[in-house]
Amino acid sequence: MREIAIVGIGQTPVGEHWDKSLRELAGEALMSALLDAGRERVDGLFIGNMLSGMVNRQENLGALIADWVGLRGVEAFKVEAACGSGAASLRVAMMAVSSGEMDSAIALGVEKMTDTRGSDTTAALATAADADYEAAMGLSFVAINALVMQRYLYEYGWKHTDFAPFSINAHSNAMHNPFARLRETISEKDYHKARMVADPINLLDASPIGDGAAAVVVVPAQSLRTNGKGRPKVVIAGSATSTDALAVHDRPDPIWLSAAERSAQRAYAQAGVTPNDIDLFELHDAFSIMSALSLEACGFAERGQGPRLALDGEITPAGRIPITTLGGLKARGHPVGATGIYQIAEVVQQLRGEAGPTQIDGAKTGMAQNIGGSGATIVTHILKAY
Amino acid sequence: MREIAIVGIGQTPVGEHWDKSLRELAGEALMSALLDAGRERVDGLFIGNMLSGMVNRQENLGALIADWVGLRGVEAFKVEAACGSGAASLRVAMMAVSSGEMDSAIALGVEKMTDTRGSDTTAALATAADADYEAAMGLSFVAINALVMQRYLYEYGWKHTDFAPFSINAHSNAMHNPFARLRETISEKDYHKARMVADPINLLDASPIGDGAAAVVVVPAQSLRTNGKGRPKVVIAGSATSTDALAVHDRPDPIWLSAAERSAQRAYAQAGVTPNDIDLFELHDAFSIMSALSLEACGFAERGQGPRLALDGEITPAGRIPITTLGGLKARGHPVGATGIYQIAEVVQQLRGEAGPTQIDGAKTGMAQNIGGSGATIVTHILKAY
Repeated sequence: MREIAIVGIGQTPVGEHWDKSLRELAGEALMSALLDAGRERVDGLFIGNMLSGMVNRQENLGALIADWVGLRGVEAFKVEAACGSGAASLRVAMMAVSSGEMDSAIALGVEKMTDTRGSDTTAALATAADADYEAAMGLSFVAINALVMQRYLYEYGWKHTDFAPFSINAHSNAMHNPFARLRETISEKDYHKARMVADPINLLDASPIGDGAAAVVVVPAQSLRTNGKGRPKVVIAGSATSTDALAVHDRPDPIWLSAAERSAQRAYAQAGVTPNDIDLFELHDAFSIMSALSLEACGFAERGQGPRLALDGEITPAGRIPITTLGGLKARGHPVGATGIYQIAEVVQQLRGEAGPTQIDGAKTGMAQNIGGSGATIVTHILKAY
Repeated sequence: MREIAIVGIGQTPVGEHWDKSLRELAGEALMSALLDAGRERVDGLFIGNMLSGMVNRQENLGALIADWVGLRGVEAFKVEAACGSGAASLRVAMMAVSSGEMDSAIALGVEKMTDTRGSDTTAALATAADADYEAAMGLSFVAINALVMQRYLYEYGWKHTDFAPFSINAHSNAMHNPFARLRETISEKDYHKARMVADPINLLDASPIGDGAAAVVVVPAQSLRTNGKGRPKVVIAGSATSTDALAVHDRPDPIWLSAAERSAQRAYAQAGVTPNDIDLFELHDAFSIMSALSLEACGFAERGQGPRLALDGEITPAGRIPITTLGGLKARGHPVGATGIYQIAEVVQQLRGEAGPTQIDGAKTGMAQNIGGSGATIVTHILKAY
């Protein structure tokens, strides 16, 4: 199996891009990644997207986008794993290149979700959950996460207010990220007075949706003669997916992300590292509760102790395990199928030392974790810089 | 790159399965493939499906189906390339195993499309075309194919009636296939008097949709010590995808499937064969015109001469290049995202000598071609038996 390097990244700002079509957003991120890689083309294109059929009435994105960017003819498919679609598309791009089927590929995440009625988007997002046993009961996606958070507060005795640092940190880190949707700091007071969405999740526990696209170019690491442009070489040192029951009620423990634990353990073993070696962690903070659960499942906190890390300031850029260093889902925004690739691009920025004011000093090993459904499909990547 | 063998196949009948949910259909085909392979589990699951979000309000099929069949935890994603989703999922399963990421995988195609209003299904199928430049003009998917057929008749001087043998052959071959939806022969008279759908495509030019699922188990060929159960060993000798412009009007020649030509040429080269070596060809006869175009693009007929092969009887089981040997899309039925895997399973049946009354004598090399959109994403596989 060939080791894979990431040699180019591209991102569009996350926002309400009513003036740009889905293909235009995708093309912007893709061309920007090619430019960053100093390449004119790749052999394959794998597109992470969840909602294009339901929301944009457009499937077959592979051929559509390949043609749009001048890559007519290359192998191109859409890969879907709900909000984990982005990282899933990177898994496929990686396997395509590491198998020797091709020598270069782009994993592109794209989602355009603000041109439709909010209720339609909410209904479309509910397809990430179990249609027959969750959605059919009237549970929206935020409602499912609210039940999980309720249970967590009950089991471990935390108060809602203990989750404030997750959102405050994410907003603070997004301030200088030109691709972030919400570039404004929030205070603890803002957090407390935010209006309720689904008890106990309020507006500042929840990530905003958005339109956006991000892309990364992957090639065999051995093909790189030099580091290129004086940049460090960034390789995928660990990469693993695990699944869990789609419906939360089907899991033995509804407040433990076992797919996060399994995929992280596999990625640690591949990369030959432990949680102590991780310099930053782009986790999937779709809701503040998910930050706590991910930190615990991946071994950064004891079971039930995720909020403690946040309260102690250990998740900030100066802390022990900086998370959401460029804003996370909470403040960069969550264009669902694109998010997994934004996370990867952000880890690459950190490992290159190009992350701006929230640069983690000396970052050499970064982790990204993308989640589809309420913990059902979890993809973990560990990147290293040489 | 490891050579890949197909060691198990499973299919459900194509029909209107109002008594079975999407996960139940998928599970039936998958368990049947595992049983056929004599295995209890696989390391990964890649699901070809186009419409589950729009029609079944269910995405994240990977985790859903993995859990349903007792494979909770394995890597599992959905792969989408419109009606080419099935073969696309096999591409991903192949690359996952050939890269060494895993030692076994299932490619599963599933589609459940008859529980909804027909107009909703038609609108959902139109997402395979260009939403902004085709569907937005009111073009349904059959209307696009009708324009292609019109142009073909005009350019080459064929009459509509010259396409009758394609449909007659497909129906005749489906008679003994227990998984086929339309097990009834049709006559030339039936073809002529069939009611018009979109001029010149009539009801007997068009394949019926349906609910169905099919699955194949792939492993590294080198892992097989014996042929197992006295069956020949079936390997994937050629496998390639090519894309074209999504909108037909964007192609230099709207009646030439250049993505079929490119993917077939690549597959021939990989397998070290020419069209003369192909014993049977499961092509993508969504409409009768597509049979002619595929035969031409893959080198079985000169440009504009596809119907000649059919009129000469060369496409029947006794002919030079038997096609749709177990009914094809036309008579086995076309559960869109599942079709590409049905085709592969049927080629395997032929190569094992298990195809029943339409068995092709001494078949050693079989080809399958799956098309997403009106020729936009085309995946060609060549299987060989040893």
